[in-house]
Amino acid sequence: MKDPKDAAGGRLTHIDDRGGASMVDVSGKAATLREAVARGSVCMQQETINLIEENRVAKGNVLETARLAGIMAAKKTSALIPLCHQLNLSSVSVDFSTDRVKNKIDIQARAVCTGRTGVEMEVLTAVSVAALTIYDMCKAVDRAMTISDIRLMEKRGGKSGPWKRPS
Amino acid sequence: MKDPKDAAGGRLTHIDDRGGASMVDVSGKAATLREAVARGSVCMQQETINLIEENRVAKGNVLETARLAGIMAAKKTSALIPLCHQLNLSSVSVDFSTDRVKNKIDIQARAVCTGRTGVEMEVLTAVSVAALTIYDMCKAVDRAMTISDIRLMEKRGGKSGPWKRPS
Amino acid sequence: MKDPKDAAGGRLTHIDDRGGASMVDVSGKAATLREAVARGSVCMQQETINLIEENRVAKGNVLETARLAGIMAAKKTSALIPLCHQLNLSSVSVDFSTDRVKNKIDIQARAVCTGRTGVEMEVLTAVSVAALTIYDMCKAVDRAMTISDIRLMEKRGGKSGPWKRPS
Amino acid sequence: MKDPKDAAGGRLTHIDDRGGASMVDVSGKAATLREAVARGSVCMQQETINLIEENRVAKGNVLETARLAGIMAAKKTSALIPLCHQLNLSSVSVDFSTDRVKNKIDIQARAVCTGRTGVEMEVLTAVSVAALTIYDMCKAVDRAMTISDIRLMEKRGGKSGPWKRPS
Amino acid sequence: MKDPKDAAGGRLTHIDDRGGASMVDVSGKAATLREAVARGSVCMQQETINLIEENRVAKGNVLETARLAGIMAAKKTSALIPLCHQLNLSSVSVDFSTDRVKNKIDIQARAVCTGRTGVEMEVLTAVSVAALTIYDMCKAVDRAMTISDIRLMEKRGGKSGPWKRPS
Amino acid sequence: MKDPKDAAGGRLTHIDDRGGASMVDVSGKAATLREAVARGSVCMQQETINLIEENRVAKGNVLETARLAGIMAAKKTSALIPLCHQLNLSSVSVDFSTDRVKNKIDIQARAVCTGRTGVEMEVLTAVSVAALTIYDMCKAVDRAMTISDIRLMEKRGGKSGPWKRPS
Repeated sequence: MKDPKDAAGGRLTHIDDRGGASMVDVSGKAATLREAVARGSVCMQQETINLIEENRVAKGNVLETARLAGIMAAKKTSALIPLCHQLNLSSVSVDFSTDRVKNKIDIQARAVCTGRTGVEMEVLTAVSVAALTIYDMCKAVDRAMTISDIRLMEKRGGKSGPWKRPS
Repeated sequence: MKDPKDAAGGRLTHIDDRGGASMVDVSGKAATLREAVARGSVCMQQETINLIEENRVAKGNVLETARLAGIMAAKKTSALIPLCHQLNLSSVSVDFSTDRVKNKIDIQARAVCTGRTGVEMEVLTAVSVAALTIYDMCKAVDRAMTISDIRLMEKRGGKSGPWKRPS
Repeated sequence: MKDPKDAAGGRLTHIDDRGGASMVDVSGKAATLREAVARGSVCMQQETINLIEENRVAKGNVLETARLAGIMAAKKTSALIPLCHQLNLSSVSVDFSTDRVKNKIDIQARAVCTGRTGVEMEVLTAVSVAALTIYDMCKAVDRAMTISDIRLMEKRGGKSGPWKRPS
Repeated sequence: MKDPKDAAGGRLTHIDDRGGASMVDVSGKAATLREAVARGSVCMQQETINLIEENRVAKGNVLETARLAGIMAAKKTSALIPLCHQLNLSSVSVDFSTDRVKNKIDIQARAVCTGRTGVEMEVLTAVSVAALTIYDMCKAVDRAMTISDIRLMEKRGGKSGPWKRPS
Repeated sequence: MKDPKDAAGGRLTHIDDRGGASMVDVSGKAATLREAVARGSVCMQQETINLIEENRVAKGNVLETARLAGIMAAKKTSALIPLCHQLNLSSVSVDFSTDRVKNKIDIQARAVCTGRTGVEMEVLTAVSVAALTIYDMCKAVDRAMTISDIRLMEKRGGKSGPWKRPS
Repeated sequence: MKDPKDAAGGRLTHIDDRGGASMVDVSGKAATLREAVARGSVCMQQETINLIEENRVAKGNVLETARLAGIMAAKKTSALIPLCHQLNLSSVSVDFSTDRVKNKIDIQARAVCTGRTGVEMEVLTAVSVAALTIYDMCKAVDRAMTISDIRLMEKRGGKSGPWKRPS
């Protein structure tokens, strides 16, 4: 079936010929090493960062909780995103850094997998749920926090090859 | 036990006296009607918006898939966010609008519950997972999309009363 | 917004005014006792029934496994059916009877809940997953088994009152 | 341990020598390409089909919701069916056709996987949950709908080779 | 139906008259405040305790991870234990103390709920999964660790009233 | 970064250089056959064992329910234990034996997998949840039951080779 968008290189892969959603068939793809990195930020009041930092220095709980939430969410990605393939991650990590100039906490997730699909959705999900967890743990003191700039930074592996976010 | 931050009104509620994380006890709170609204955006290339819009007019699949993903994720919130209370939502809805000037899709989630805790995390989770689903469905044509401005707009019910995001 | 179908009493409740799916708001409904019963059948070869029956008399494993699968699935209903409300069941049971004339196993599920929505989907889900489990456990000897006549028999409670399947 | 049924080729594979349920060991099987197709139907009143069809033409929501529910359920199969193996699906699709003569909607699911076990349970689960979702979305107007004829149509791959449902 | 064990006060509540498992009907019970406390221990080599303690003092990660795992597992109890009722916990906490004489880490979980069933299974599940998590995080250095003495200490609320473990 | 514990061979593998938890990267490990066996016990009153045994002879329900709960829990291990890798089990079995001298039920779980990580956590989780299920089903007659001696007995496969619990 002819798709007029093919020429422009712009075809939404999850929409089948009749327009119904389906999980793209990846059985013909090779199981290769895939890696991806995503980032995002939680913007907050200066006082909220102080509270997290003081606590982090002493015990690290807000960020440790967010880190584990992000890691566990990465493993649930295919149950959250309807057309996302199941895969068994080889590794996931979530890290944080504090930006005291812009009053935000930056989150980075990295994942690795040997499989037929990339792990972009897994790292983006890890960042999102880590950010939501920071919000949950601090919302009593700062209800107006904002989660922003959740984005893919880099991916490797698979037929489409490496990709780096243009700076 | 005396907490030096109490005077300043700034105490992280999930950290117990010894610094261990725990689910805040809400058994003394009344089960009242709670409502919350959250918003967020997915920024993309103009051509990506065109593809979604043409598809949405014809069959609505990208946004319908994101809508259902957001609704289903709202029901999983307490399994994703470690210290979030379980609750039985009375209602969840997820809506979209297209901003062709800024090339983004705006997402809004609204939820209602009769319970002892608010539904802020449920609407923020719904928006986040709807956004991730839009990314998943369009990533083959626009890997650089960014998810931004996930934020609480409004909440009602509970001891702390109504709250509206300052504009 | 005017809906031309209202007069005929035929309006699909999960479709909002703009056509987007959403979880119907039940916050205005009273939390009353709800009960529902559903049935279904798995049709198979006579020899397959013999195998299950002999096993059931001796140890009951095929049907016990299906029973537990049905009960556990009832508790997962709102995670399987996108627009289904979460509820805490007060009781679920799954029972079987063998029809040796028609070579089928009949399944019945019953559930009770005090809540704002009915438990029809919970009993239909319990019957469906119990049937799938019977299929799974016997498929090596009878791949052509068919699951049929999954239907609501009866419901009580809620504003719409009692309903019995017309015979 | 001797099993008297072995001679007749009729042995229930999930029952171990002592009668306890266990997940069959598939570690000796080769990881090959597996495919399966299942079908089922939801029988309803003519007016209910009209409502779905009008809606489908305009927005496609009932069937799109059922489609996504079926796809997502396929990914949860091993969590629903107690002795079913975990596997990572390469592809799942769910399609519908309307039979206006018999007043029913026919559902077909297809799945592909590279693995050590077949995907029969995955497609049967997808059909079952898609059917339950159609029921859920239309139950307010047609409580007596019946789900029927859920059956395997075809499977390929694995030691037992291809199988087609006898017509 | 007469049950010969009733006189002796010893009847297994999950077995129905025909011997099939079912979720006990609690719809007639009042929704009252329930509370329970459970404990358990992980026995290990002295060097393993040293590693955890040094780490706990500095960053607290092994026990913080176990704590969150226990809290999150408490919320999943009804999905793990087949005949366990669903309930919405008002509070869960998990705490640890180190016994350097017996070389073990003691775990205590406490939960509160307003509902129709007790929270004994929730606290026992929290302790069990916290213990498994300690094992997981330290198994590379001490494969022989043993999890022991998982037991209910105390419960309050419900028709059967308060119970305290005899010392 | 130098870690002073490396010399002593004692380094907690889940703690990264900065002390944050992460899922250990196993992408460089070979996918080989892994097997593990774990055991544990539920200690109870003599009368409780009698009740289970009489029931088991007749219908086997308490232990059959515990067996299925253990098998299903093994498949959920990576969702329960935060830093545990996802894997697709080739086989799981759970068995019981009654010790009438010490008034306890002994549980054994065995699992097999072809993968990059071992299945120790899967068998320990299966034993734990089978034990919790026995407790749940008998708690109305014996609230003081204790779960003990959950331990790894044996493992095979992987770089670290075979391990047997010293007797």
